[in-house]
Amino acid sequence: MTALSFELLAQDGAARSGIIRMERGSVLTPAFMPVGTAGTVKAMLPESVAETGADIILANTYHLMLRPGAERIAALGGLHRFMNWPWPILTDSGGYQVMSLAGLRKISEAGVSFRSHIDGSEHFLSPERAMEIQSLLGSDIRMVLDECAPYPSSEPDIERSLALSMRWARRSKEAFAQAGTGACFGIVQGGVYLHLRQRSVHELSAIGFDGYALGGLAVGEGQGAMFDVLDATVPYLPAEKPRYLMGVGKPDDIVGAILRGIDMFDCVLPTRSGRNGQAFTWNGALNLRNARHSDDPRPLDTACSCPACRAYSRAYLHHVVKAGEIIGAMLLTWHNLAFYQDLVRSLREVIGMGAVKPFAARFLERYRGGDVDEGE
Amino acid sequence: MTALSFELLAQDGAARSGIIRMERGSVLTPAFMPVGTAGTVKAMLPESVAETGADIILANTYHLMLRPGAERIAALGGLHRFMNWPWPILTDSGGYQVMSLAGLRKISEAGVSFRSHIDGSEHFLSPERAMEIQSLLGSDIRMVLDECAPYPSSEPDIERSLALSMRWARRSKEAFAQAGTGACFGIVQGGVYLHLRQRSVHELSAIGFDGYALGGLAVGEGQGAMFDVLDATVPYLPAEKPRYLMGVGKPDDIVGAILRGIDMFDCVLPTRSGRNGQAFTWNGALNLRNARHSDDPRPLDTACSCPACRAYSRAYLHHVVKAGEIIGAMLLTWHNLAFYQDLVRSLREVIGMGAVKPFAARFLERYRGGDVDEGE
Repeated sequence: MTALSFELLAQDGAARSGIIRMERGSVLTPAFMPVGTAGTVKAMLPESVAETGADIILANTYHLMLRPGAERIAALGGLHRFMNWPWPILTDSGGYQVMSLAGLRKISEAGVSFRSHIDGSEHFLSPERAMEIQSLLGSDIRMVLDECAPYPSSEPDIERSLALSMRWARRSKEAFAQAGTGACFGIVQGGVYLHLRQRSVHELSAIGFDGYALGGLAVGEGQGAMFDVLDATVPYLPAEKPRYLMGVGKPDDIVGAILRGIDMFDCVLPTRSGRNGQAFTWNGALNLRNARHSDDPRPLDTACSCPACRAYSRAYLHHVVKAGEIIGAMLLTWHNLAFYQDLVRSLREVIGMGAVKPFAARFLERYRGGDVDEGE
Repeated sequence: MTALSFELLAQDGAARSGIIRMERGSVLTPAFMPVGTAGTVKAMLPESVAETGADIILANTYHLMLRPGAERIAALGGLHRFMNWPWPILTDSGGYQVMSLAGLRKISEAGVSFRSHIDGSEHFLSPERAMEIQSLLGSDIRMVLDECAPYPSSEPDIERSLALSMRWARRSKEAFAQAGTGACFGIVQGGVYLHLRQRSVHELSAIGFDGYALGGLAVGEGQGAMFDVLDATVPYLPAEKPRYLMGVGKPDDIVGAILRGIDMFDCVLPTRSGRNGQAFTWNGALNLRNARHSDDPRPLDTACSCPACRAYSRAYLHHVVKAGEIIGAMLLTWHNLAFYQDLVRSLREVIGMGAVKPFAARFLERYRGGDVDEGE
């Protein structure tokens, strides 16, 4: 009995569509997971997140362990009940945020000690504690603790870091095996060094996980280097397990990664951009702060059926964004999440029809062409 | 043909319930109007505002004339379409915000010149321009421009200010009569000087309006002084027209004013408090920032069916308020607006049953008793 099963439904070149089945629900792949950092997908009610088509969200172990605390959430019935999201949740291990947010980090073989960016309090995260926290949260897919090396890093530094991450992956798997619930994904590291990436794939496959993530990408290496890593890595991952590209990305990153065989994504871009007045459309990204929208009666995107596009003009969205009104963040976040779900849904469909390549080419042409009559 | 008709449905002492009929919809009274200052009831989607039971909202002429501009909103099809609220809208005249927000005010017989608090630009508001702006917005109930004297002010100052407000009321009515749409309310002024209030009632009644508001209250005079003004004023207002107490108030202010014959209210308190972590319940107000909520699995208010109370614990609300998450503002605003609508709905019911006095007494006892097992 495994907590997660993955069925491939169609393949089109390297691209694939499938279904991940878990106790709390199924996830159609390719899937985009909205980010619910601190127990909320920012500026959204969870039922609205589901309405966009999302069937799984991501939550951040780092943020939740610091506030309100994993033991507290467990006492309140677990994360799903706490945040009113009854469907699957994937939690990261906290490793990435420790590197990017926390103060006074100290990494040892045992784990990483650090200070909270919220109140300066001291904390320790080990592979075992990361698994324990994710178990307390009750997450459906748990990630191993890894070390996220900065970009750029030298090959010897990445090789040392990778070796530690692989030892931590083994300990994570052992700790996970004792928890008895959920599923556990390993994380491929190795920076932009393709032979290290392949070594990482080999070692993780030998340990055996319910799915395989690619970490340490979208950290500044550029889309070309990222795609090179995918090309050199994805073919060696177990075909019968889901593949998850962590923290990616822009719409064209996602399309390119799906063409290369990735099944799952998460990214703060649609939510963060929504709070900053930026909207994603089939004709590229729009900045609603721009004065050219101030008298425009058209909807954001005529192809979209989200509340922002159904009932509001660009002029209104411009107004509320400029005025700093919360509804601006609410509507643009909703739109962006709906757009990301529409995008992966379209890709699932064209993969099923064997037409992913022409679709991707048309998408990229239109997306990079920009907003038709305006040329921002 | 009048754009507004008012039917009294029941009376219980001075308290009354009724229905205001307008082209865009009917308003059950006593009514609480959520405040949609700048074309949005902050942190709410308009369909959610309607879901709380609100059948009319208030919008601010001052804010909308400065940003995005009344002519722009008119060109975009009017305020209802702009903000996606197809039901009745009452607009104030801008006078109050000119006094409280704008810089470099200069009042003359003609009107008031001032600088925008947003960008320092110069503007002029006269009784005629205030009516024109409200006509451009397309509001259903329009308010005359009045001068809002500060509190405290001496009797001679209030008398001079009142005389100007009454001359402006006459000019407002004449300008309104030429617009040909909507309804127009006069505003009773006179500070805490009861004979001046009565003079104001007399002069406004002679002009003749679709409804009568009481302005210049809830500005620091205290509940007792405010109720004294109501006691000395409301009996002299035309019984067949709606009576609107502007900018009020706390739940117990509203109950006391309904007992004294007021039909309509507006106030930023439920929305502003919601953004500040405060929730109104039948057992008084709660501050969700307080650490005593951090482990509390109970809903905010077991008597409430809003989304915040249906699906979240106090512990969750505490967490998102502390973390500054937008969902905290969204849920608490929704709850507070639902509570205010539940309150006026309950009062409409007990007025119909002839039981408003015992209801009010029980309400005040419970509301002032505070949150039962905690004693904040």
